[in-house]
Amino acid sequence: MFTHLPPSEYRGRIEAVRRRLADTDAGAATWFNATSIAYLTGFHHIQTERPVLLCITPDHVAVTVPRLEVERVEPNEHIQTVIHYFDYPGGNPIRTAAGMLEDLGIDRIAADMDGAPGTMGYDGPPLSDFLDVESQGWVDRMRYAKSDREVALIRESSRWANLGHRYLADFTLPGAHPATVSQRASMEASRAMLDTLGDQYLPRVRGDGPVHAGFINAEQTALPHGHTANRRLQFGDGIITGATANVDGYFSELERTMFVGEASDEDEHYFELMLEAQTIAIETCGPGVDVAAVDQAVWDYFDEQGVTELAQHHVGHNIGLEGHEPPYIDRGNDETMEPGHVYTIEPGLYTADAGYRHSDTVLITEEGTERLTYFPRSLDENVIR
Amino acid sequence: MFTHLPPSEYRGRIEAVRRRLADTDAGAATWFNATSIAYLTGFHHIQTERPVLLCITPDHVAVTVPRLEVERVEPNEHIQTVIHYFDYPGGNPIRTAAGMLEDLGIDRIAADMDGAPGTMGYDGPPLSDFLDVESQGWVDRMRYAKSDREVALIRESSRWANLGHRYLADFTLPGAHPATVSQRASMEASRAMLDTLGDQYLPRVRGDGPVHAGFINAEQTALPHGHTANRRLQFGDGIITGATANVDGYFSELERTMFVGEASDEDEHYFELMLEAQTIAIETCGPGVDVAAVDQAVWDYFDEQGVTELAQHHVGHNIGLEGHEPPYIDRGNDETMEPGHVYTIEPGLYTADAGYRHSDTVLITEEGTERLTYFPRSLDENVIR
Repeated sequence: MFTHLPPSEYRGRIEAVRRRLADTDAGAATWFNATSIAYLTGFHHIQTERPVLLCITPDHVAVTVPRLEVERVEPNEHIQTVIHYFDYPGGNPIRTAAGMLEDLGIDRIAADMDGAPGTMGYDGPPLSDFLDVESQGWVDRMRYAKSDREVALIRESSRWANLGHRYLADFTLPGAHPATVSQRASMEASRAMLDTLGDQYLPRVRGDGPVHAGFINAEQTALPHGHTANRRLQFGDGIITGATANVDGYFSELERTMFVGEASDEDEHYFELMLEAQTIAIETCGPGVDVAAVDQAVWDYFDEQGVTELAQHHVGHNIGLEGHEPPYIDRGNDETMEPGHVYTIEPGLYTADAGYRHSDTVLITEEGTERLTYFPRSLDENVIR
Repeated sequence: MFTHLPPSEYRGRIEAVRRRLADTDAGAATWFNATSIAYLTGFHHIQTERPVLLCITPDHVAVTVPRLEVERVEPNEHIQTVIHYFDYPGGNPIRTAAGMLEDLGIDRIAADMDGAPGTMGYDGPPLSDFLDVESQGWVDRMRYAKSDREVALIRESSRWANLGHRYLADFTLPGAHPATVSQRASMEASRAMLDTLGDQYLPRVRGDGPVHAGFINAEQTALPHGHTANRRLQFGDGIITGATANVDGYFSELERTMFVGEASDEDEHYFELMLEAQTIAIETCGPGVDVAAVDQAVWDYFDEQGVTELAQHHVGHNIGLEGHEPPYIDRGNDETMEPGHVYTIEPGLYTADAGYRHSDTVLITEEGTERLTYFPRSLDENVIR
């Protein structure tokens, strides 16, 4: 049972960054992006108006943080120096970070961004006011392929997503409120996960549980990013579900098109087209396959069936520390699938009244693929009776 | 009962933007930021790797969206033209948006950002590859002071936050799991809100409820942004709560330091210092008051009490469409409080073992202040017996 990454993973990532750094004229590489900082060091923080700057030199790792992160980052074994400013804006975050770089003897950096992102109204000077800056996007690319240990976390996430999803189906009845069903399923699955994992569980959420299971309903299913309508469930309603669990910051994705009591003939028609499209997409995936080919295979099927007008988005995306990650499975993308990539496969069809979409999390292996989410996909098993 | 903004609010905002535009050499103003787009038009979308560009000219409002947002934006009465690309990256979002601007006869824009933000690995060209770009940050500044109707939504949010918080307190017992207490309180309060508001409720959340109430516990309270520890509650535990509700996209903030069964002498000591600091901060607030003066008043009190070493952050922040918004109540900030600003007031103290922080949402009025969150603040009323 793997529920968190070992220190060796972070050491390997830092070494990989140092190899890239050696090919530049910069004395250090830096990151403002919270996800990249978590990826490289295991130090997770919420990206807010308070900038955090991680700096990796050939022989040192240093970070500038707001005062309120000091106690969380100090025990981190991968970070040797912690500098802080009291708060934003009076603490002059960028000046503090530039001072840290100067103290390390750095006069040129390879940076993920020249200045901190404008999150929550943040506004401040670029690092290039203080030293030479060249740009790098190393971590985004490093994150494409997951290690075996990362895959194990996404696999663990899939297990708890499945439980949350099962509870969703169990609690779904005519007359029930979709928000209540969603929140109750999240609560019950989170409790089971926390009690099962015990001290193997690494806290990564605040004032909430690690499992989220929910659905959208009524006319909102016709919108791929619909909201939860304030309307109790009725016999014959279609719903589109979603379930995931946070396992040391990693996520899976499981979505199903389900029906309360029964599916209409029209529902059945579009459901089967969607299901076949998903099957085609999964079967097309594999190592060395162009992502564009997977999206094209679904498009060709939709075209053959005369339903391209009902498609609203491409087939899927990589997933890991973020819910959406590149590469995107899109006809206009020239990336290739490689072992360790973990994709959501989720072609959808949307009429004026309703949407039809499953999403499964699929690992690209050396030999082919493995579906990590395993809730049943057939219509019969997704009509809640 | 005000649960959503009327169309006149959006018209007023668009007109305010047009007045600023008239003072520039640009033919249109543009925004990539999802919150700014929601603020100006009421079109809410999730900021992802798929860019959305809003464009306001002196007599037209146009937007470029990914295909999957078309049905959501088309009914919007404030937007006259909807252009879409199929998906990212193949649909060439920026080229599509630049084409929209060209079709409108625009060759120079005042933009919130030159290119779309790098959310979820998005990577693409700047708009300045296609036309002249000057920079503007109008909306961030417009959002500082809330209108009466915006304040009404934050007031409504405070009511449901209070209910969620009351449920939190009710469900908090020795032996209970903090995640389960949090999720159950969110579920029950969301259900009450949805059933109370009925068709006055505007859906703004997906697969979840509109109320979130939760807490952090155990050693995590010593971290201002702590996580939920996987440990059942014990008699004598301190917890730090948080509750809010989404009302047409607007939020309030309510946090309390509470104790399960009883507070130790040390807990009582720091609680009372924190409470007095919060009272001082609230009493210092008012129209025409420098935000720095409020932060300084708390700092002076902490200094007098010899506890500045236990402070880890400034006093608070503006709040509205985002959980944190400028201006920040910080000694190094030269902004001034004005009627319509809505601030969280949340000075905290953090020992090695535990944290002490209340947060209340306070409106600056013409005459002084009004506290919008109203859960009791005293120690006696925050020991759960």
